[in-house]
Amino acid sequence: MRELTVDLGERSYPIYIGEGLLKEASTYFIKHGISKKSPLLIITDSRVAEYHLESFESELAEAGFQTASVIVPSGESSKSLSMLESLVTKALECGLDRKSAIVALGGGVVGDLAGFVAASYMRGIKFVQVPTTILAHDSSVGGKVAVNHPLAKNIIGAFHQPELVLYDLNTLQTLPPREVSAGLSEVVKHGLIWDAEFAAWCEENAEKLLALDAEALGYALYKGCSVKAAVVSKDERENDLRAILNLGHTIGHALEAVAGYGELLHGEAISIGMVGSARLGLRYGAPEDVYTVTKRVLAKSGLPVRLPDHFDVDKIMDAMMHDKKFSEGTMVFVVPTEIGKVEIKSDVPVQWVREIVEQLKLEVQP
Amino acid sequence: MRELTVDLGERSYPIYIGEGLLKEASTYFIKHGISKKSPLLIITDSRVAEYHLESFESELAEAGFQTASVIVPSGESSKSLSMLESLVTKALECGLDRKSAIVALGGGVVGDLAGFVAASYMRGIKFVQVPTTILAHDSSVGGKVAVNHPLAKNIIGAFHQPELVLYDLNTLQTLPPREVSAGLSEVVKHGLIWDAEFAAWCEENAEKLLALDAEALGYALYKGCSVKAAVVSKDERENDLRAILNLGHTIGHALEAVAGYGELLHGEAISIGMVGSARLGLRYGAPEDVYTVTKRVLAKSGLPVRLPDHFDVDKIMDAMMHDKKFSEGTMVFVVPTEIGKVEIKSDVPVQWVREIVEQLKLEVQP
Ligand SMILES: NC(=O)c1ccc[n+]([C@@H]2O[C@H](COP(=O)([O-])OP(=O)(O)OC[C@H]3O[C@@H](n4cnc5c(N)ncnc54)[C@H](O)[C@@H]3O)[C@@H](O)[C@H]2O)c1
Ligand SMILES: NC(=O)c1ccc[n+]([C@@H]2O[C@H](COP(=O)([O-])OP(=O)(O)OC[C@H]3O[C@@H](n4cnc5c(N)ncnc54)[C@H](O)[C@@H]3O)[C@@H](O)[C@H]2O)c1
Ligand SMILES: [Zn+2]
Ligand SMILES: [Zn+2]
Repeated sequence: MRELTVDLGERSYPIYIGEGLLKEASTYFIKHGISKKSPLLIITDSRVAEYHLESFESELAEAGFQTASVIVPSGESSKSLSMLESLVTKALECGLDRKSAIVALGGGVVGDLAGFVAASYMRGIKFVQVPTTILAHDSSVGGKVAVNHPLAKNIIGAFHQPELVLYDLNTLQTLPPREVSAGLSEVVKHGLIWDAEFAAWCEENAEKLLALDAEALGYALYKGCSVKAAVVSKDERENDLRAILNLGHTIGHALEAVAGYGELLHGEAISIGMVGSARLGLRYGAPEDVYTVTKRVLAKSGLPVRLPDHFDVDKIMDAMMHDKKFSEGTMVFVVPTEIGKVEIKSDVPVQWVREIVEQLKLEVQP
Repeated sequence: MRELTVDLGERSYPIYIGEGLLKEASTYFIKHGISKKSPLLIITDSRVAEYHLESFESELAEAGFQTASVIVPSGESSKSLSMLESLVTKALECGLDRKSAIVALGGGVVGDLAGFVAASYMRGIKFVQVPTTILAHDSSVGGKVAVNHPLAKNIIGAFHQPELVLYDLNTLQTLPPREVSAGLSEVVKHGLIWDAEFAAWCEENAEKLLALDAEALGYALYKGCSVKAAVVSKDERENDLRAILNLGHTIGHALEAVAGYGELLHGEAISIGMVGSARLGLRYGAPEDVYTVTKRVLAKSGLPVRLPDHFDVDKIMDAMMHDKKFSEGTMVFVVPTEIGKVEIKSDVPVQWVREIVEQLKLEVQP
């Protein structure tokens, strides 16, 4: 079992990573002040519920917690205001009070949604994250919670830190392979922006990770969370440093916006985006391995490194310009200077970006 | 012009109270770091817009602020999640970014609604309160913002402190007389819980206040805000002390729940509730003047002190028991011990409360 602390002053909280933690959930809940006197609401999604809800519920019930559960449809569309309203209805019906906690059992979608319910119900009650995807290592650190608006993702939300995060590696065994790779994309990102040694480790251990080897996975998630925690503790409210977490995301978001629904997972889109950022690094004089290593580790993690032919470059450029309001002719980008280090460049010529997006169609698998 | 500071560490903010402040709004906005580079969104309601929006908009525009305005229907029903969604749509359409501010021009409804938009848009942007009701002196201190759910008032919200509060006494001149009295109810409450001298002042100056005399009004709002600020600075997150602000509210909320729509304004309901609390004080041995003074000052402020005959006592009791989960046979109440002092009693016999509610029908105008 591994443990780390997200250091945010009086809002600090622990992350526990290990096998079989759900079977001991009540012990952790009690240790971290989750009350048995007030009802808990577990929020999960239809896929996760199928595999992991029952045993979790009964463990908590046996220990004397009063729990109710609500299952939302699997997928991004559950992150909506109307779902928030239904969940608040449920919370009221179950008698949740100011000492109750909301428990998110699921991936980033459930975490973001349940977290926003916890942040806004009675102006904020306790929140526990029980992540069940690899990608959720990212969303379980930093306290960003949100729902989507038809016109913009994650635009309605809050900063609301959990009381604790309980990461049971066993739950990850049921993840579909594509979700495994997509989650590794953010793990790799954390190496690329902060820790060259860890990036190298990701490459060496890619096969084990894809095979969901518990020891490798535990270490990867521990390191991934640690990097994110280090960044977030220095900049809880996203004023400056936190921006480095967006490596690959400017291009990635544009690809997600342009792709047909479901064509690219977030992790896949930012994988291609990180290759683009690496190319941008080269233009700014970074050593060649910034590009080769980035591409290799992503490819070994089962991720795409090439932009499929049918993507329209004009549309991608439009989506990028729309996403952030860039000033005439230049853009802001997170650019690697070496493996494990990035810089924020605020005057990247749009023309360079366009050339790189075009080049991304020509990338070959390493 | 009067000024006070709500002291909340790094979230501290000033309240300016005076005549004609809207005409100088831009000066205050600039002084408190509201940016001219990012668009502002003014949220107001249909009645307030009629009287006060145009001049406010043009003052800001002349000073170089980029403003857009949105007018919601007057009344409590605008405090909804669907209104939040429309306002976020508007904010996106107007290009509000992380450096933008939301400005609430209106009473408590607009303040709570706009405040929650500001709290959740992009996980929190700046917020300015420009209160136009007397009651809003209460909602402009403390940072509580919220919308309603069909099953519960104010249940979805946040704590989000404004950058500044600009209280222009001139805007109050257009308030309907019933709203004036309803607002004074909370002003008087602040005297009753904290400051006997101020409670006496309210009684002596009731006529001036009802006539909207600017000097009296300015002082009353200054004192009302000061009491609330003192309480809130000691207990930002409503852990203990803040509960004293609920004097009269347990009965008052029940009356609001039972009354036909629009029959009792909030301030009117808590006026009757405060008379009930004073009676409860007597039972606990408070001196007689706790009751006589409470009743006199409220009556002089144009407020009801008697429960209309047609109210059903059983329904009121049910609503009260439902509102808070009280343990068998006892209830929690804020009870005055002398004028300017209250205590929280957590074991008030339900039977006493029922007797007092019945007695409230027999109160005579002092
Ligand atoms: N808050 C943050 O800081 C932050 C950071 C990154 C991403 N996010 C958000 O996270 C979301 C993406 O997260 P995600 O990739 O975990 O998505 P997700 O929660 O939708 O999970 C992906 C898919 O895997 C399924 N699933 C989850 N756990 C499973 C398990 N153990 N076994 C089998 N199937 C399982 C889900 O039902 C879903 O179909 C996005 O909404 C994104 O905005 C938030
Ligand atoms: N956040 C808090 O701490 C807090 C505290 C107390 C009350 N509240 C909330 O405040 C709300 C009640 O506030 P309110 O009484 O100001 O209600 P309100 O905002 O609805 O205003 C009352 C009425 O007066 C009208 N009005 C407002 N200003 C006017 C003006 N200058 N001239 C003419 N008409 C005007 C409005 O259109 C409305 O019809 C409730 O929703 C309550 O929950 C919040
Ligand atoms: Zn991401
Ligand atoms: Zn009130």
